[in-house]
Amino acid sequence: MTARTLQGFMELLPEEQIVMEHMKSVIAHTYELFGFAPLDTPVLELAEVLLSKSGGDTEKQIYEFKKGDTSLAMRFDLTVPLAKYVALYNNNLTFPFKRYQIGKVYRGERPQKGRFREFYQCDIDIIDRDELNIVHDAEVLAVIYTVFNKLELPAFKIYINNRKLLSGFLDNLNVADKTVDVLRLVDKIKKIPEEAFLGELGDLGLPESKNQKLLEFIKINGSNNEIIAKLEDFKIENEAFQTGLDELKTVIAQAQALGIPNNNVQIDLSITRGLDYYTGTVYETFFDEYPEFGSVCSGGRYDNLSSVFMDKKFPGVGISIGLTRLYDQLHNKGLLKIKGPTPNKVLVITQSSDYANNALELLAALRKEDIAADMLLRECKFKKKMEYANKVQIPYLVIIGEDEAVNNYYTLKDMTSGEQFKFSLHELISKVK
Amino acid sequence: MTARTLQGFMELLPEEQIVMEHMKSVIAHTYELFGFAPLDTPVLELAEVLLSKSGGDTEKQIYEFKKGDTSLAMRFDLTVPLAKYVALYNNNLTFPFKRYQIGKVYRGERPQKGRFREFYQCDIDIIDRDELNIVHDAEVLAVIYTVFNKLELPAFKIYINNRKLLSGFLDNLNVADKTVDVLRLVDKIKKIPEEAFLGELGDLGLPESKNQKLLEFIKINGSNNEIIAKLEDFKIENEAFQTGLDELKTVIAQAQALGIPNNNVQIDLSITRGLDYYTGTVYETFFDEYPEFGSVCSGGRYDNLSSVFMDKKFPGVGISIGLTRLYDQLHNKGLLKIKGPTPNKVLVITQSSDYANNALELLAALRKEDIAADMLLRECKFKKKMEYANKVQIPYLVIIGEDEAVNNYYTLKDMTSGEQFKFSLHELISKVK
Repeated sequence: MTARTLQGFMELLPEEQIVMEHMKSVIAHTYELFGFAPLDTPVLELAEVLLSKSGGDTEKQIYEFKKGDTSLAMRFDLTVPLAKYVALYNNNLTFPFKRYQIGKVYRGERPQKGRFREFYQCDIDIIDRDELNIVHDAEVLAVIYTVFNKLELPAFKIYINNRKLLSGFLDNLNVADKTVDVLRLVDKIKKIPEEAFLGELGDLGLPESKNQKLLEFIKINGSNNEIIAKLEDFKIENEAFQTGLDELKTVIAQAQALGIPNNNVQIDLSITRGLDYYTGTVYETFFDEYPEFGSVCSGGRYDNLSSVFMDKKFPGVGISIGLTRLYDQLHNKGLLKIKGPTPNKVLVITQSSDYANNALELLAALRKEDIAADMLLRECKFKKKMEYANKVQIPYLVIIGEDEAVNNYYTLKDMTSGEQFKFSLHELISKVK
Repeated sequence: MTARTLQGFMELLPEEQIVMEHMKSVIAHTYELFGFAPLDTPVLELAEVLLSKSGGDTEKQIYEFKKGDTSLAMRFDLTVPLAKYVALYNNNLTFPFKRYQIGKVYRGERPQKGRFREFYQCDIDIIDRDELNIVHDAEVLAVIYTVFNKLELPAFKIYINNRKLLSGFLDNLNVADKTVDVLRLVDKIKKIPEEAFLGELGDLGLPESKNQKLLEFIKINGSNNEIIAKLEDFKIENEAFQTGLDELKTVIAQAQALGIPNNNVQIDLSITRGLDYYTGTVYETFFDEYPEFGSVCSGGRYDNLSSVFMDKKFPGVGISIGLTRLYDQLHNKGLLKIKGPTPNKVLVITQSSDYANNALELLAALRKEDIAADMLLRECKFKKKMEYANKVQIPYLVIIGEDEAVNNYYTLKDMTSGEQFKFSLHELISKVK
């Protein structure tokens, strides 16, 4: 039997995994700092539950199968399971409900470089009943900003927009009936040439004069204040447009109050996030020098999380970091600055196996002090043991031989400085701590 | 569409999930304290890889399906994926290789109370090339002991045995050819009456005199030293038996050197772990007062981890904690003493939304100091906000109103003592920290 891992499924070496786990724990810790509570939902759900909201590509990519008479599917995101969760348990939840979830999701895409079939999503969502304060849209920006800084990622910008602006603008052009299609098309603007974009707009049946106006609109640029000023100058008396503008202004101002540097948030009127699902603020995040990575953190505001499952209204706002792909891209480009903790602080080796019990007693004492410690008790030459100690890059080495055992002390070697000490247990612990 | 979660799949409320996550992180931290590095392998593998080693029940329980022409399966444990991993990457690993993995596994059992189809296993294994020092068998005991203490679990005992003792004993009785069947039967001794056990031994074709001897052997009891003395008294000159006895004595002595109280480790010659897989030390762990929970942590020593995949020999020793079931049983009996961290330390509320930006600035300052903080900025009456603060059981409440905003201070309420303070930002941070 040949050992083999499926294509598109990440598997790391221990030293890489330590970094990945550290990234996960930094993300979790930051989410908690902002008041989000952890959630865990099954990887497997009833196929009808998972597919209740999707269509098109998702259905093709989903891992779906039968067990007995039941159609099961592996989750392809963490949002549909959240919608189900809120529908099931809303009577037991305190609102606003802030949850984070870090978990694997599955998409059976055709495997290609940089694409994964199993990957971690790291999601936050804030859900309320009936209405959700706009401040949470700004809070999401602060979370992204803080997480990205703590992960020591390359320089980045969070691009934001409000879908109501474009809907209102289209309504004002009297083409409101095309809104869904146009927003989906605008989402592609950065990937296709301008003519192709105008052509596709034409295909939707929009008159050329309006298409030019639309193109000008989504190309408005400048600082956040400049863009807001230009939007105000339009003086469009459309309710959706004005609400979108107010919300955008509030979010930008509150982002400043939350201490996010201006340089990290940029209004971009061409950001729409294709999905029908979003109804207000939308986010995408790009690295300044690596736009080819695509958006590394996206999300937005939605009016009704659980509409497929129930009548009650649960508006929310959330984002997702695709961690597996992010790790992979950074790793491949040598851009991972963050380091995981050193697995062990102390390695104990003995001159011979006669001193094994001395080593074990020392290990017990160190671990009691919460000092990660390990030993190498292989039957091998002392030289081999020293080679191992150098290889595993341990900060402190303790050597136990006859003299140490008889005279009840420990020889500690600081592997960074090369210094060597004769220590009592107490001295050894203080030094290492 | 009705929201529904599959039977046998655990889904917790946020306050429960916080405890579960805390348990996972205590387990991970303890494993790291003992020098284990994290590992993560795919949930999905090629069916032929996962089924390479199994048979019988496992095959019936496995979630297996086709995607295109490929037969896929969801992992049913973390051991087969480890065997695959070591076969694939052994050239890049440093031995002894100590890894831990905390992940979900899947078994499509008939659903019944207390049984889960998706559950967490928390595994450690220590693998070496060719030979693995016996000290690691004792180390495993120390890990279980430390984890269980840190999880604040009920009083427990780790029952250990060495399969070589029983194999040697059977060899000495000239029934070595029945070893596999007998060991599997002995594994059931606590679940069936003595007569039924003897009857089944008879069915295996063993003569009655030998069966009585076997029964007496596995019923030997007393303190660890007494059992060892009785085993020595047998004076069985069989190599496997003597090796098993030496190993058991070493493990018991080393467990003492590692500081494990005698009371927490008990030799039990009837422990065999049914699987053919184990070749030396075997472990099971029971709560003293809740034997009906079954073994909550089991494992053992094996000669060759990756034998299905390759010729090289990788002996190892490991254990697994079935966390989902453990959590469920403890939770149902009200035995969970461990508490997760309080999600937030500080809640900020405002007299009116005019002070929203003051609240946001305070939140930014607190989070910069790594203090988990949140706000309630709903448009609702102040009384409602106070009700929320009481409901979420926050340790500290900060109130911002006109006076605070104008005179630049914060009103902090210690929700435990009921005391109220007027604080500068600096004072507030020191108090809360």
